Amino acid sequence: MKRALGPSDRLYPMPSPLVVAGTPDLADAMAVAWIGIASATPPSVAMALRRTRHTLTLIREQGDFTVNVPSTSQAAIVDHCGLVSGRDHDKFAETGLTLAPSSAVSSPMIAECPYNMECRVTHEVEIGEYVLVIGEVVETHADESVLDETGTRVDIQALDPLVYIAGLREYRALGRKVADAFSVGKTIAPKE
Amino acid sequence: MKRALGPSDRLYPMPSPLVVAGTPDLADAMAVAWIGIASATPPSVAMALRRTRHTLTLIREQGDFTVNVPSTSQAAIVDHCGLVSGRDHDKFAETGLTLAPSSAVSSPMIAECPYNMECRVTHEVEIGEYVLVIGEVVETHADESVLDETGTRVDIQALDPLVYIAGLREYRALGRKVADAFSVGKTIAPKE
Repeated sequence: MKRALGPSDRLYPMPSPLVVAGTPDLADAMAVAWIGIASATPPSVAMALRRTRHTLTLIREQGDFTVNVPSTSQAAIVDHCGLVSGRDHDKFAETGLTLAPSSAVSSPMIAECPYNMECRVTHEVEIGEYVLVIGEVVETHADESVLDETGTRVDIQALDPLVYIAGLREYRALGRKVADAFSVGKTIAPKE
Repeated sequence: MKRALGPSDRLYPMPSPLVVAGTPDLADAMAVAWIGIASATPPSVAMALRRTRHTLTLIREQGDFTVNVPSTSQAAIVDHCGLVSGRDHDKFAETGLTLAPSSAVSSPMIAECPYNMECRVTHEVEIGEYVLVIGEVVETHADESVLDETGTRVDIQALDPLVYIAGLREYRALGRKVADAFSVGKTIAPKE
C-alpha cells in the first residue's frame, strides 16, 4: 500500500561533496547534496544553489568551481561547511582544510578531499529560488591512496565517500556490494 | 599525492532509480544514475538522457515522467532495464514489474519500487549528445512498509535504496550511519 507524501526534494541516496569557488586567497567551500551528472559528452555536472549563496557569487566571478568528494571521516567538516556562511566564517581556518591549485580552472580544490573534479561553468538555469549551475568537468584528481591496482580507477572501499540522506538529515557510509552492473541483469532472460 | 585522471563523468556515489515515461499501455522504464535535485522551490530533479533514448521520446510525448527508487533486492531488474531498449523489449513482462497510475501526471509509476516521484517537465538543456531534462516533482509516494513511525518520513533502513558506483560499474547498498547532518558540524568551534 502506497502513501502520498506530497511534492518533495528527496531522492535516495545523494552524494555529499564540498563545492569550492574563488581564488586561493579568497575561496568558499559549500556542502552540496543537490548535484548530479548532466552529460557525458562533454562530462558535466549540474548542481542546485540557492540564489543568495555566497558560493554562487564566487562561481559567477570565476566562471568555474571544483567538486570535492570527502570520505566519511570528514563528516563533521562537511557539516560545518553547510552550517555557516563563508561571508562571515573562514571555513578553511576553522576546519583545517587546505586549498591546492587546480590544473585547468582558477578555483582551487580541497587537498584533503580524496577525489576532486575541476568544472568550468557552461549553463545556468533559474528554477524558483535556486540556480542550477551546469559545469563541464575538465579534469579530475584522486589521491593515490584511493586508487586501485590499475592506478587509474577509484577503489570505492578506499574512497569511502560520504553519503547524504535527505529528510532524515543523516550522513551514511556505503555498504556491501550488491552486484555488478551491466551484468546481473543478464540473468533475466527475455520471455520466448 | 594526487593523480590526474582526466575529464570524467564519475561522481561518488550516485542514486540508481528507474525512470518511467509513457502511458499505462505503452511505457518504458530506464535505469538513470545521472540524476540529482535541481531546486527546492519548486522541488525539481534534473537528469541526463542520451538524445537517442526511447524514454526521451516518451517523455516529450507525455510532458512528464516518474522516478522510481528500487531497493537492493531489485538490482537485477534495474540492470536489465539498463541493458535492453524498450523499443524491442517489453521490460515489464520480462521483469515482472507492474505499473500503477500516478495521481498528478500521465506517466505511470512502478508499483514494486518502494519510493516514487511524479515529475512534470519544465526545462530541457541540450549538452553535447545528452539532454538534461528538468522536471518539477509534483507528488511523491512511498510504500507504508518503508515509512518510519511518524508515517510521513522514509525509514532509510527499510527503503534500502540501490546505489550506483560509476567507473567500477557496481551496485552497492547503503552502510552504517556516520553522523547527524546539521548537527555534527557544531563540534567544530570557530577559532577565537
